[in-house]
Amino acid sequence: MTDIALIDAAAARARGVVRETPMLTSPFLDAIAGRPVLAKAEVLQHTGSFKFRGGWSAVSALDPEVRARGVLAYSSGNHAQGVAHAAQLHGVPATIIMPRDAPALKIENTRALGAEVVLYDRAGGEKREEIGAKLQAERNLTLIKPYDDAQVIAGQGTCGLEIAAQAAALGITQATVLTCCGGGGLTSGIALALEARAPGLTVRPVEPEGFDDTARSLSAGTRTGHGSPESGFCDAILTPMPGEITFPILARLCGPGIVVTNLEVKEAMRLAATRLKLVVEPGGAVALAAALFHGRDLADGPVICTLSGGNADPSLYAEILGGA
Amino acid sequence: MTDIALIDAAAARARGVVRETPMLTSPFLDAIAGRPVLAKAEVLQHTGSFKFRGGWSAVSALDPEVRARGVLAYSSGNHAQGVAHAAQLHGVPATIIMPRDAPALKIENTRALGAEVVLYDRAGGEKREEIGAKLQAERNLTLIKPYDDAQVIAGQGTCGLEIAAQAAALGITQATVLTCCGGGGLTSGIALALEARAPGLTVRPVEPEGFDDTARSLSAGTRTGHGSPESGFCDAILTPMPGEITFPILARLCGPGIVVTNLEVKEAMRLAATRLKLVVEPGGAVALAAALFHGRDLADGPVICTLSGGNADPSLYAEILGGA
Repeated sequence: MTDIALIDAAAARARGVVRETPMLTSPFLDAIAGRPVLAKAEVLQHTGSFKFRGGWSAVSALDPEVRARGVLAYSSGNHAQGVAHAAQLHGVPATIIMPRDAPALKIENTRALGAEVVLYDRAGGEKREEIGAKLQAERNLTLIKPYDDAQVIAGQGTCGLEIAAQAAALGITQATVLTCCGGGGLTSGIALALEARAPGLTVRPVEPEGFDDTARSLSAGTRTGHGSPESGFCDAILTPMPGEITFPILARLCGPGIVVTNLEVKEAMRLAATRLKLVVEPGGAVALAAALFHGRDLADGPVICTLSGGNADPSLYAEILGGA
Repeated sequence: MTDIALIDAAAARARGVVRETPMLTSPFLDAIAGRPVLAKAEVLQHTGSFKFRGGWSAVSALDPEVRARGVLAYSSGNHAQGVAHAAQLHGVPATIIMPRDAPALKIENTRALGAEVVLYDRAGGEKREEIGAKLQAERNLTLIKPYDDAQVIAGQGTCGLEIAAQAAALGITQATVLTCCGGGGLTSGIALALEARAPGLTVRPVEPEGFDDTARSLSAGTRTGHGSPESGFCDAILTPMPGEITFPILARLCGPGIVVTNLEVKEAMRLAATRLKLVVEPGGAVALAAALFHGRDLADGPVICTLSGGNADPSLYAEILGGA
């Protein structure tokens, strides 16, 4: 089970490998939000998203003999790159199962990071879990799940340790922390770290319209799906339901979920480019969108938001910056 | 005269105000360059460029009574924002003279940072120096020059102190440091800092095609112009000639200049977006372009390049990312 000791241990293994990402500000964003906005720039993490934290944590925690046989992951892209890079740095093979319609850049990067990529057709009804189970058995691989894994959550929790320390250095003891939420790995990891190190910081998960399974689940008090298809604009965070391991943590520690529109996400992406000079992908911009455009739903005071990933498809990104 | 003591003093005044910017890497960029590439992300500095370092240094060094009367600057944009923000944080008025054809975002930001912006028509033959002299006399303002000012150079030198410390932390003692070079403020400041703190790091100024006055001057051993018009693609660094104060420093400490094409700059901007998740403006991308595409002109070993500014015009930037 992930607790602060496991997160501290993940942080110790991450030292010198995982980047401490900066917390950035802009007076222009503060003016829009009507409050101080602090952006935790996980787009600057290795592989372009926070997922390298969890990938590195899980791969580095394996018994060396087990690790040497190789690791397996299924992912639409960012977890794929995080695990691939972690395996590459350990010199062990990675097999990654990705949907054929994942952003081309994410597939290409995962291959370039040394992984074998196995594509599947999610619209055609293929199940990644079945493909994964078969490969896992054939090759004796260790599956690194994207969020329902204690060591992955601990790795994402290292982001929370940094937020706690960076907020303290700025004299911030009370704040809302908005997280980009898919299966809940980042959100639960941050929430556990803050519970121990910065209890005045309250986590609120943010999701895109149509994919608000976490908001619904928190409201219902039990894991609930959103009923939408598997693919959409914010591709990185479109899980069908919160995780089995992550949800109880969210339910215990997080405030209500927040849901943003795709138009708000696009505007947040444009503002991240002009005001923070950061490239943020749709799924990585939902928390900033909430910070800027959902102040009415937030407690007073500063807001910290994760910019959780920057692996935007270049042509789609150019269109959005151009006003599409 | 700027020396390491003046740079250290500027760093002391900058503490808690100027951001220490990260030095970022990507295995994809290393593969293109065929060597380790470290990108000093000055786009993440307050106001989106290194110019805030020099602006803060100069404004904070003024006698409080002199400062209270206000400061004046002329600039196509980044120095304008740096001085405006420094004045704003000190609570003193800033008057900024900008060309009417400067990027709209830079004019707008300078106003939003509290400065009074006076526009002039450079194509029509108006001279910013004449306008500046008149305003300076009328209002008793202190002129903060963009590069030929000892305290401005000292402020830019704080970027060099960070490069020296960050390189040392990575075990790098020999490297080429590529700087985006206009009037030579950043280049001379970094060169002075490295001379004192990391003498194995050699600075090479980089300029865009047609605006290679520094390369020509270093080659000739005397200040020489480039003979091109005042405006162009890399708007931030299109000075007619190296500075009077900066050039002797460059001539003493820097290796030969490097000239890159606009096509190389655009490709470097696209790669900064996809590989580093950073928005870089044309003038801020010339050093990365040299790192990636001019390896034949560089000594072996790692290369550190400044990404010196990120205030790209949004529509132009979207076009470039889209392949224009």
